[in-house]
Amino acid sequence: MGTDPKSLVEAARSGDPRSLARLVSLVENGSPGLREAMRAVAPYTGGARIVGLTGSPGVGKSTVTGALVRSYRSAGLRVAVLAVDPTSPFSGGALLGDRVRMQDHATDPGVYIRSMATRGHLGGLSVTAPQALRVLDAVGFDVICVETVGVGQAEVEIASLADSTLVIMAPGMGDSVQAAKAGILEIADIFVVNKSDRPGAQEVVRDLRTMLAMAPAAEGGWKPPIVLASAASGDGIGELVDKLDKHWSWLADSGERDRRRLIRAREEVSAIAVAGIRRRIGALPGESRLDDLAALVASGKLDPISAADELIDGRD
Amino acid sequence: MGTDPKSLVEAARSGDPRSLARLVSLVENGSPGLREAMRAVAPYTGGARIVGLTGSPGVGKSTVTGALVRSYRSAGLRVAVLAVDPTSPFSGGALLGDRVRMQDHATDPGVYIRSMATRGHLGGLSVTAPQALRVLDAVGFDVICVETVGVGQAEVEIASLADSTLVIMAPGMGDSVQAAKAGILEIADIFVVNKSDRPGAQEVVRDLRTMLAMAPAAEGGWKPPIVLASAASGDGIGELVDKLDKHWSWLADSGERDRRRLIRAREEVSAIAVAGIRRRIGALPGESRLDDLAALVASGKLDPISAADELIDGRD
Repeated sequence: MGTDPKSLVEAARSGDPRSLARLVSLVENGSPGLREAMRAVAPYTGGARIVGLTGSPGVGKSTVTGALVRSYRSAGLRVAVLAVDPTSPFSGGALLGDRVRMQDHATDPGVYIRSMATRGHLGGLSVTAPQALRVLDAVGFDVICVETVGVGQAEVEIASLADSTLVIMAPGMGDSVQAAKAGILEIADIFVVNKSDRPGAQEVVRDLRTMLAMAPAAEGGWKPPIVLASAASGDGIGELVDKLDKHWSWLADSGERDRRRLIRAREEVSAIAVAGIRRRIGALPGESRLDDLAALVASGKLDPISAADELIDGRD
Repeated sequence: MGTDPKSLVEAARSGDPRSLARLVSLVENGSPGLREAMRAVAPYTGGARIVGLTGSPGVGKSTVTGALVRSYRSAGLRVAVLAVDPTSPFSGGALLGDRVRMQDHATDPGVYIRSMATRGHLGGLSVTAPQALRVLDAVGFDVICVETVGVGQAEVEIASLADSTLVIMAPGMGDSVQAAKAGILEIADIFVVNKSDRPGAQEVVRDLRTMLAMAPAAEGGWKPPIVLASAASGDGIGELVDKLDKHWSWLADSGERDRRRLIRAREEVSAIAVAGIRRRIGALPGESRLDDLAALVASGKLDPISAADELIDGRD
């Protein structure tokens, strides 16, 4: 087995998990071999179904992901899970979650679970996550679940990565009200009300129905269904898989899948370009000039827009 | 009263709320007058204390903010609240929250509450929020509370905007465990365990203590205190204000305040520069070329890194 990016891709495609892990690390670290790896991977992409899972901490995203993995595996599909932690400049927690969840499937070559930190600040998630998906797709996984920590910008970005986006809620967390506030109603292809055995689950469903009824009709005619589930016991997961299949068919038939994937590619290319330009800014001799400009701004002697102009155009 | 940016700044500084509202709208919309407004505002900045409030949906961020506003008002300070919704490409919900909370202080000129949507995708929050803070600072507010929706990337960005960051938790939400996962332990200057009257509050405090004991010692010697509060009844808010004062003194004495503000200015200038460059990308004749490149990437004929290169360098 070679260790150049192209050989890694071939080895990963023939089922070697260590080669796959190395490829994802190339992406995560933005390593020099990444460019060649992406080139080798491109022709094999486009076959995987990408399912995004979002929701507030505590609603049971990981449990729902786990239940989906088991269900797809029992249907003979190969499944990858990409857990994205957008707060990673600080966190080492993602890896722990990995290890815990890996145990269920440690000996199953049809399952690959990986947490990914998104280094850096601006555009971290939007640059690395799509490329990791690209690798998993090319290697032959049938379904890729993308799970993210938290609610917010990252949620919206995840939705732009996925073919189907699940918004997961649970009773007793004030989620239904917050959902409207956070604008995640609009990104949901399917709602999952998890922990259906707990009091208040029916209330969440009712609130959701009310809000969906008030929302403008979804573009292209898909009406997001609400699935009541208890992922821990497996209740409702069959129905969820069924709704996912229906959504997948609708995506294909309506042309929405290709439309979304085109937008996704557009976003991805833009994000890589912006990151590239940002790197160039960092590499300018003006790197030390930035500190001077920041000091002027912090002391009120210069406004930040003029400072940014000087940074871009190199005026003194 | 003139309506050019400079006159708006003068009018807002002499207490006209409509001029202030217009200035914040200039920021939010990135209007042409923004550049001049920022220039007019710069010399008056640096006086306000900026308090960031973060935490999962449902922990009571708005209630804590409200309690802080009442407390600072009764001490005669002028207080502004900036509520940032990082998912705003979709949401109109922020404005609703505004109206609800505004009622308490509708006739008090010493309180200004504003929700701000962060338009666009990359860098929205990091470009608009600091400039809005700059306006509120220059207009003479003593304390500015910045509150954000959700957990994730936005949380970390908010921390970089604030002098003091409150991480708010509540019992029964699995927050303490999630906190470690999401890496927000590292951004907290003060922890608030809200809803102290609910079962499990002491447990959250205990879990936090355990995790803080395991964490590496904080840079510069500040040890984040944990404040147990019930913001709805006002319990614990006095102690919270006291801890905020202590943190403010520590920031000044240790030099950490100036250090943070320098980093903040640096981030702000960089973000504006990146947004400016991104606008230039959008304005290139290659805007239509981007669609072609995206189609090639979506179909696997081109990898996204090569596509980004073509976008930046204009190769065909």
